[in-house]
Amino acid sequence: MTSTKDHIIKSYDSELARLTGEIVRMGELAASQLEAAIDVVERRDERAAQRVVANDEAIDALEQEISHDVVRLLALRAPMAGDLRNVFAALRIASDIERIGDYAANVAKRSIPLSMVAPVGPASGLGYLAKLAAAEVREVLAAYAEQDAERGYRVWKGDAELDEAYTGYFRQLLTYMMEDPRNITPCTHLLFMAKNIERIGDHATNIAENLWFQVYGEPLDKQRTKRDFTSNPEMPKLGE
Amino acid sequence: MTSTKDHIIKSYDSELARLTGEIVRMGELAASQLEAAIDVVERRDERAAQRVVANDEAIDALEQEISHDVVRLLALRAPMAGDLRNVFAALRIASDIERIGDYAANVAKRSIPLSMVAPVGPASGLGYLAKLAAAEVREVLAAYAEQDAERGYRVWKGDAELDEAYTGYFRQLLTYMMEDPRNITPCTHLLFMAKNIERIGDHATNIAENLWFQVYGEPLDKQRTKRDFTSNPEMPKLGE
Repeated sequence: MTSTKDHIIKSYDSELARLTGEIVRMGELAASQLEAAIDVVERRDERAAQRVVANDEAIDALEQEISHDVVRLLALRAPMAGDLRNVFAALRIASDIERIGDYAANVAKRSIPLSMVAPVGPASGLGYLAKLAAAEVREVLAAYAEQDAERGYRVWKGDAELDEAYTGYFRQLLTYMMEDPRNITPCTHLLFMAKNIERIGDHATNIAENLWFQVYGEPLDKQRTKRDFTSNPEMPKLGE
Repeated sequence: MTSTKDHIIKSYDSELARLTGEIVRMGELAASQLEAAIDVVERRDERAAQRVVANDEAIDALEQEISHDVVRLLALRAPMAGDLRNVFAALRIASDIERIGDYAANVAKRSIPLSMVAPVGPASGLGYLAKLAAAEVREVLAAYAEQDAERGYRVWKGDAELDEAYTGYFRQLLTYMMEDPRNITPCTHLLFMAKNIERIGDHATNIAENLWFQVYGEPLDKQRTKRDFTSNPEMPKLGE
């Protein structure tokens, strides 16, 4: 026989589990959207691109639902300390996923003008970036689903690879633009798309940080080296 | 003589007022950062730019503080319905301000490579965008401080002007890049800076939406027309 207190605790735990489940589902949707966006860029399919843009609403709706669940959980249970930490982590992670979805939709959206003008050359590097980012998102969500902060930390560290690939691709795009002015407009879209993908990686690392804080109650080391050199004084020499 | 209930209510109200005050302070810091960033771009002052980048930490720290206050408020008071709505609006607005600060720091950061390469021509349009954005931020914060949702709504509507100015500036930058390949690298920085500023406007409208929801308990109409045409099929014809 369970006591009333056990019952309340179990119910709280099951609500928290439900919340985690919703977030994982939301994250899977965002990762699928990113993969669909890559596919759309590769196939240059305007209709599919519009579908990706429209699907973003489902992610936004899920974030709203999660917010409501959090409010209900807070109002009904008034959780303390460690439990509050879980609830706040959930809220922040949901917001990171929502932005990953935004960026994925943006990549799909920018593929529409690209389909009319872009040469194959400059666009070909984007898929690699996007695949790195999608893998990061999938991996950090798996880590979150299992509450495995160490696994999340490996994603956090691995984001440096995406940052380096982004910087390389950025330089590559500059050379295409210099080579032929007709490349300039499509390449500016590709620049923004690449930046969006690089930002997706940043949100994956945010999720890892929130997971770490949730599990250990203290922040993950903030001393991570930022590897986006494109807003760095060294880079522009290339274009001089 | 006040009853215990009155006392609890008053104390809750004063904590909420404190929270609102912290958010307004945080917002003023972000608006000042944006103004400092514009100044830095105009004067091409690398040291001042680095100061703006460093100051962003103060905004991040304030957001952390606000988060802690919210947690404490929730744990101690377990507010219901309308009060919870206030607390959640505060949390979301703090997160929007934090991102406005990020974008301002990013504009300052990108001014450093710009100082070595950019011609005066392409950069001159950026200040106007930034001034529009800074005015939006200041105005929406004033609306928030006074809990004046209608005033916030006017900012929300007025953001269309910034979106249009951004689109015009974007097209202008493309022509500079096509004119002379030496403009390409500085102009890609200016593109990102302009995009950052356009995003600041979006966050100002988010704040207006949260304020509206806080005051009226229902969402501001979502049918706002998006006026950033640069990721629109019509635009790239310019560059063909």
